[in-house]
Amino acid sequence: MPIQAISWSPSGAVRIIDQRALPEAEITRDLESAESVADAIRQLQVRGAPLIGIAAAMGLVAGTRDLRSASRDVFIARVAQLSELLVNARPTAVNLRWALHRMAGVAKTTSGDGAAVWERLHAEATTIWEEDRAMCRRIGEHGLTILPDGANVLTHCNTGALATGGIGTALAAIYLAHEQGRKVHVFVDETRPLLQGSRLTMWELGHAGIPCTLITDGAAATLMRQAKVDVILVGADRICANGDFANKIGTYGLAVLARHHGVPFYCAAPWSTVDASLPEGDLIPIEPRDAAEVTVMAGRPIAPDGAAALNPAFDVTPARYVTGYITDRGIVQPPFSESP
Amino acid sequence: MPIQAISWSPSGAVRIIDQRALPEAEITRDLESAESVADAIRQLQVRGAPLIGIAAAMGLVAGTRDLRSASRDVFIARVAQLSELLVNARPTAVNLRWALHRMAGVAKTTSGDGAAVWERLHAEATTIWEEDRAMCRRIGEHGLTILPDGANVLTHCNTGALATGGIGTALAAIYLAHEQGRKVHVFVDETRPLLQGSRLTMWELGHAGIPCTLITDGAAATLMRQAKVDVILVGADRICANGDFANKIGTYGLAVLARHHGVPFYCAAPWSTVDASLPEGDLIPIEPRDAAEVTVMAGRPIAPDGAAALNPAFDVTPARYVTGYITDRGIVQPPFSESP
Repeated sequence: MPIQAISWSPSGAVRIIDQRALPEAEITRDLESAESVADAIRQLQVRGAPLIGIAAAMGLVAGTRDLRSASRDVFIARVAQLSELLVNARPTAVNLRWALHRMAGVAKTTSGDGAAVWERLHAEATTIWEEDRAMCRRIGEHGLTILPDGANVLTHCNTGALATGGIGTALAAIYLAHEQGRKVHVFVDETRPLLQGSRLTMWELGHAGIPCTLITDGAAATLMRQAKVDVILVGADRICANGDFANKIGTYGLAVLARHHGVPFYCAAPWSTVDASLPEGDLIPIEPRDAAEVTVMAGRPIAPDGAAALNPAFDVTPARYVTGYITDRGIVQPPFSESP
Repeated sequence: MPIQAISWSPSGAVRIIDQRALPEAEITRDLESAESVADAIRQLQVRGAPLIGIAAAMGLVAGTRDLRSASRDVFIARVAQLSELLVNARPTAVNLRWALHRMAGVAKTTSGDGAAVWERLHAEATTIWEEDRAMCRRIGEHGLTILPDGANVLTHCNTGALATGGIGTALAAIYLAHEQGRKVHVFVDETRPLLQGSRLTMWELGHAGIPCTLITDGAAATLMRQAKVDVILVGADRICANGDFANKIGTYGLAVLARHHGVPFYCAAPWSTVDASLPEGDLIPIEPRDAAEVTVMAGRPIAPDGAAALNPAFDVTPARYVTGYITDRGIVQPPFSESP
């Protein structure tokens, strides 16, 4: 069974698995405030484009529990303030902005006092989460159609149950294939610097009993040359109108290598990942993260003191390298003229 | 000044810098026996194709110091036995075999007793080392001719002073450019799993005052897309007759990406790296190393218990991706019909 990455705690806090601690420890945290949800997103305790959208929506609800007796104006003002805080937690994934925009719309159009608006927001956050779960399944069903039986799939980063409210995006088809008793094997890029592949994808696939093999990012090209990879499935943090998309650093190189070796290369994402307001990929803000993520590992320096390092968290893959976009609306092709 | 990676100790042992400990600690070790040299090669205390050839030749000498009073037959038999041990320490780099083959030839053709043969072997090992130092400089001089002023060079693994008896192979041109006051900047692939880029290349370039920036292996493609890389320089562990060559895992992917982005891609190596007995690259034995190099980092697990991992230490880059081979004999093109 795939793992469940997020839920409400009995007291209404946002319950997450601390993804920084995996695979060494499985730590559940109850995030009581919007501030602690924003911190958890910033520190990657909770990550994955769809999941941080859900977490932000739920965080807005958890963080306004104590304001239910407030007047409508006070309540709405606080919602706007906390949304602002949450939306700035990470810049690249559009799902965060999308979920908070949707929550703001609901708050505005719900009449009544703080308690009434809060109840509606609570229901909306739960709906966003449930919709995501359903979207993951639909993405998986569409993905299944391009997955040959006995497929060797290569994936990058983590786009599974730990990245969503359901069974993932790029990993969804793999979960469904396994559920149906079809043979499937996954090569998992470790995904430096933060090792979401080795730490998270290997953990959740192993948990579900799906055969998988870890490789360093630099080994993927040789597996393709040796014809050991049938298809590459990756996720997305933002997809532009023309189909260019941002995803974890290393994705663009895989896309070029896939094209060179004739390996189909698919991007899997819920429709909420589309940002039709951006015409092309080089307009996507790319989050520069701390150089220490590259120079320090498990608390030990792996580069000399003071070494300069670049650490862009994401890269942009132009649409021309993408075989298809596996979404909850089917396998589609750009242009994407309609935002969700 | 570039670092000196190997030398004779005053007592005739092989003095090395323990490259596993860098950059955290600079530990010098005196290897007293051929067995300890073989262990050091196997454990990567000493690594780099040219340097392990030199270390093996010197180890043969250090390991027979106590046999100088033996008869010729006893001495020669021991040399053969220790050569066998040393040649099997690592399978991919041909320089190891080349250096030991040369030592064996000298032993056979030198007349006299153990002491006489030992003296000749000592001189020959020193010559191999000195020749390597001179070859590095010549490789650097040829490399300089393709290095634009102000170049941004991308390199993989460690091919510098820590990989040779001199100033390196792929890094030699960079050292010479810096020595001549030319502007040069190096992007250094960290080179997973063993991080020779972050641990060793960043250390020795920093030591020499050469500007360098560390990146994860997955970030190289995006730098090329952004036109931030003028040329790629890598080393080689074995070059076949047709020009296919083995080098650290990750090299092949870089070569494909370089071709795709129109970035010149050069392989730099001493002529002793050519193995004309092998017609093409897929015949090169590729060393499979322990999966724990991928799943454990600085003593801490970074993948779940029991995770399967592939860890080929090298990959093969077909000749068609290579702009040129920078050798001590000039910048050359295959076929290479003559072994050194």
